[in-house]
Amino acid sequence: MQEINKAVIIGAGNVATHLGPALKESGMQIMQVFSRTRASAEILARKIGCEYTTDIKKIQEGADIYVFCLSDSALFPILEQFPHKGTLSVHTSGSLSIDIFKAAAFTKAGVFYPLQTFSKNTRPDFQKIPICLEANNEELLTKLEKIALAISPDVRQINSAQREILHLAAVFACNFTNHMLAISNEILEMNQLPTDILHPLIEETIRKAIQQNPAAIQTGPAMRKDYLIMGKHIKQLSALPEYRKIYTFISESIIAKSEK
Amino acid sequence: MQEINKAVIIGAGNVATHLGPALKESGMQIMQVFSRTRASAEILARKIGCEYTTDIKKIQEGADIYVFCLSDSALFPILEQFPHKGTLSVHTSGSLSIDIFKAAAFTKAGVFYPLQTFSKNTRPDFQKIPICLEANNEELLTKLEKIALAISPDVRQINSAQREILHLAAVFACNFTNHMLAISNEILEMNQLPTDILHPLIEETIRKAIQQNPAAIQTGPAMRKDYLIMGKHIKQLSALPEYRKIYTFISESIIAKSEK
Repeated sequence: MQEINKAVIIGAGNVATHLGPALKESGMQIMQVFSRTRASAEILARKIGCEYTTDIKKIQEGADIYVFCLSDSALFPILEQFPHKGTLSVHTSGSLSIDIFKAAAFTKAGVFYPLQTFSKNTRPDFQKIPICLEANNEELLTKLEKIALAISPDVRQINSAQREILHLAAVFACNFTNHMLAISNEILEMNQLPTDILHPLIEETIRKAIQQNPAAIQTGPAMRKDYLIMGKHIKQLSALPEYRKIYTFISESIIAKSEK
Repeated sequence: MQEINKAVIIGAGNVATHLGPALKESGMQIMQVFSRTRASAEILARKIGCEYTTDIKKIQEGADIYVFCLSDSALFPILEQFPHKGTLSVHTSGSLSIDIFKAAAFTKAGVFYPLQTFSKNTRPDFQKIPICLEANNEELLTKLEKIALAISPDVRQINSAQREILHLAAVFACNFTNHMLAISNEILEMNQLPTDILHPLIEETIRKAIQQNPAAIQTGPAMRKDYLIMGKHIKQLSALPEYRKIYTFISESIIAKSEK
């Protein structure tokens, strides 16, 4: 089986900024970075120590793998114009199917999805990031596993249907929890209260929810069906009808789940 | 000003189990534990090294402070029958007003509210717990501050109206985030996917939300108005209409907040 030694990184956003260097540190040779945005391409190429291009036609051939770290909306147009469709190519998206490669006439495709949220300026610890893999066939999957295990001990085989479920679950677990924290902050700020006062409570709540079963440790007025307090809260939210609606529906849902 | 040296702990639940020993370690003499439940009273009294009673009439007089660590629903009936209403008394509830003492004819009252979620078997780090104080007058407040500062560096003066707002904000930040995690787990389990795969992502999301402004770092399909993905998610939730409703309302709320 041919070794995967040489990679080209397509994209220079949050995922590429961390996955590129991680692949390099694991022993991979990064030949080139491609990005439509010159500044981003240049910064990442300098970080990795390789060349870059902003011209899709100048993406080097001869790589063993092309790693597409692009936003969902940017991916398909780039795939369509990509000049090396016969070489193993992976995308890093949680929400796109592997079939997007087939639709763009790629022959050897996979998904290499690091399940984490990345920010350009915060270096993630790949040792703690689950890498979700999928490939067209067993041989390609074995190759991707080898690459993934060189950067993280937590490598899992997750097909596109499962990845869709993961993504939906992550919307609740991350996007929606973040919105609950945003609403909480808004309520505190509207009342000139400091937001940091809740941080220890939030951290402990999440620590418990991860260590245990969140449904089993639910607390609060809805859980104990304290309609007096809930009524008071709903009244306090009278100036924020949208949050009142959320308060009511989530409280109802907590009660319903507790009775299941 | 008379020193506060001797305390009686009323209650032997989650808060009493940790606050009692913390007060003792800070130098307070704990005279007695009261609980209606003999087993709980005995366990906590042994932990602290003091006597206990299950008879409200046998609660010792001569304490400098009575610390009521009771559930909201248990507090008022105990206050009514309490034999020493002239001594400084505090409750530890986030949701009850200081006025509950006045209603029960206490003369020197306060609130001593450690803003954290407690479980009997997990020892909390009081150094990281904000203590929210309120008192009838400045002299009592100064006394409570001294007690609080002996167990935590984070002591804040929060009146009953502010504590109500804090409690409402905490429902969003803790109870509702926990429910989002419970829904996420349910979705994963229904699809035979492991729940631990999302833990690193959840931890990082919360870390960011606490360090930064959660509204400013919101991500996900609603934030980028990706109606294609949202439509797919809503379809995936067709067997869970209650969660579909939550998905829709929270997504709408994320969009609305992003446009504010």
